[in-house]
Amino acid sequence: MGFYLTIEQVRDLARGAAVLGTGGGGDPLIGRLLVEEQLKNGKKIEILSPDELDDDGLVLSTAMMGAPTVVVEKVPAGKEVVTAYRALEKHLGREAIATIPMECGGLNSMIPLIVGAIAEVPVVDGDGMGRAFPELDMETFGVYGISGSPMVVADEHGDYGVVDTGSDNKKMEKFARALTIQMGGSAYIAEYPMSGADVKRTAVWNTLTLGINIGKVLREANERHLNPFNELKAFLKDTIYGHGVILFNGKIVDVERRFKDGFSQGSATIQSFDEQHEMKIDFRNENSVAYRNDRVVAIVPDLITVMDEETGSPITTEALRFGQRVTVFGVSTPDIMRTEAALDTFGPQAFNIEHNWQPLEKLSPRDWSLSS
Amino acid sequence: MGFYLTIEQVRDLARGAAVLGTGGGGDPLIGRLLVEEQLKNGKKIEILSPDELDDDGLVLSTAMMGAPTVVVEKVPAGKEVVTAYRALEKHLGREAIATIPMECGGLNSMIPLIVGAIAEVPVVDGDGMGRAFPELDMETFGVYGISGSPMVVADEHGDYGVVDTGSDNKKMEKFARALTIQMGGSAYIAEYPMSGADVKRTAVWNTLTLGINIGKVLREANERHLNPFNELKAFLKDTIYGHGVILFNGKIVDVERRFKDGFSQGSATIQSFDEQHEMKIDFRNENSVAYRNDRVVAIVPDLITVMDEETGSPITTEALRFGQRVTVFGVSTPDIMRTEAALDTFGPQAFNIEHNWQPLEKLSPRDWSLSS
Repeated sequence: MGFYLTIEQVRDLARGAAVLGTGGGGDPLIGRLLVEEQLKNGKKIEILSPDELDDDGLVLSTAMMGAPTVVVEKVPAGKEVVTAYRALEKHLGREAIATIPMECGGLNSMIPLIVGAIAEVPVVDGDGMGRAFPELDMETFGVYGISGSPMVVADEHGDYGVVDTGSDNKKMEKFARALTIQMGGSAYIAEYPMSGADVKRTAVWNTLTLGINIGKVLREANERHLNPFNELKAFLKDTIYGHGVILFNGKIVDVERRFKDGFSQGSATIQSFDEQHEMKIDFRNENSVAYRNDRVVAIVPDLITVMDEETGSPITTEALRFGQRVTVFGVSTPDIMRTEAALDTFGPQAFNIEHNWQPLEKLSPRDWSLSS
Repeated sequence: MGFYLTIEQVRDLARGAAVLGTGGGGDPLIGRLLVEEQLKNGKKIEILSPDELDDDGLVLSTAMMGAPTVVVEKVPAGKEVVTAYRALEKHLGREAIATIPMECGGLNSMIPLIVGAIAEVPVVDGDGMGRAFPELDMETFGVYGISGSPMVVADEHGDYGVVDTGSDNKKMEKFARALTIQMGGSAYIAEYPMSGADVKRTAVWNTLTLGINIGKVLREANERHLNPFNELKAFLKDTIYGHGVILFNGKIVDVERRFKDGFSQGSATIQSFDEQHEMKIDFRNENSVAYRNDRVVAIVPDLITVMDEETGSPITTEALRFGQRVTVFGVSTPDIMRTEAALDTFGPQAFNIEHNWQPLEKLSPRDWSLSS
């Protein structure tokens, strides 16, 4: 059933979305503050489950595009993403009935909520990535046949571009990326125009409430001095994500990071406290593969999140620092993200990783003990 | 009165448009062949004078965008520019009554004729540059208040982007350029949507027939063994361009050319046959300023065209070679291109030239004699 977001839920979502961001997706904080401001000004944000959508209604996915680090310097007013949403409606000559997040991880868990508040349309409880990914063509919508375009890229001055590349979502990503760079490195998009029936068939369901609940579990674990990782594992068991597991505990000893082709790429090395074991995590915006003593223990699209060892606070790749004491946590992805078509689109090969995908629950069926 | 183009007129136009291209704008040859093919297949191309346009009708400017050198490798089929034209109509939700050239110089004198043939709409006898210029914001349409956007950039696969930057035509140029680069370096555009009344007020009039007539004058001079430059000067006297003048005769002794920021930039040095005088021409796609013994004798937006000394065949900057025997010819621009607003947009400062604009007829009132 539909519900209206509370400020506490927005705060929980910010924490949960950072877990689902798997190191990337941008810090949800700025987005959280913008959404809170809307709620404090009396705006309401209605969340609808996919099954409540009219099959024939038009739904538009909304998000920020570009480098999240730029957003910190070019803080959005909120209305930018509404420009994109309205411009796509205008281009299509049709009003939309709802917006749906492109991704449920990171900053983009928040951006569609701003559309919900300002444009006064419901936000669908689901998304097109089930986590965060670096590119617009890496969406379940596209995996299951929806064209990303026509789509809109808008800047903070109300100027925009419409990109139409038919069913070629990779090309759409390229064109939209070029516009985003011209717009100063960050922009706002409305994309994957689709019907309510399409949403039901192609979205990862209920990931907005998933994010809220993950945040709530972590908050309550801290309030009650419980182990956050055990709580998280217990909670995930009853969701479509199912399997949560500790991949490593230790201290960050090295971080290599370079900005290449518009992406933050690199790796982090973590040493166990007894200095007997090592984990290396490669990332491309998001963490993509985790090696424990050179053996793959988790691989994209499964989730790899580096968290504060004590509080379970997720740490983005940008925030990784030498000496941090961390727990690396893995989460298995739902079935819709593991089909052959899905793995073709956002599996290891899409990230130029030489290893084949294997399910997390097989690679890491139980917590790797501190000394193993 | 309106008329239908003949193949002979298309050939004359190709020659005349190369003169009006002032060294840039791309070789009209490929465009000419595409247009001839349309005529041979029975298509008709109707040319309308601006005063024949319905004041309320919608007119779209069409052109190729990007590096003309790429077009040689990525030969257009013709329909690409129609994709752009149709996509802009669709975005605006309105049918256009005609297309108008963006520029009358070079390849883009031909591209709108293809729209005329395939989309079966008249082509307006006029343009927005009165010559060739390197950027989309350098158009008389924009100088006199028309917004270039919404505009469309389309590629050869039927994919496209719509750019809407409100009244900011410089930003439109930037966004469209970024898309063009993603499209492989050349693309097709429809831009400056405007009314028939706008065309009458802001276009440079009758430049399509001007191009045809310049080509005809040169052809007939060759057929009749007359001096092509004298014939050209006599013809121009009765047009809005008025003043034609020989700026230099000599032999090319040096050409410096580099590809920078997406433009072909550089200079050519020409020595008089008696080796007593020197002309240096700076270009940025088009020739922008001519120095005779270090003194400015012609400066943008007035036209500077390097031509074969004997036949009067125009030579593009790309085709300039050591040892060529050339005549440098200057042509004054019409009043609509010389207002303060026009000079702000495409005068010397827009090309980072330190000299102020002065009218050609003042800088070079008569032919510079061979020994002066």
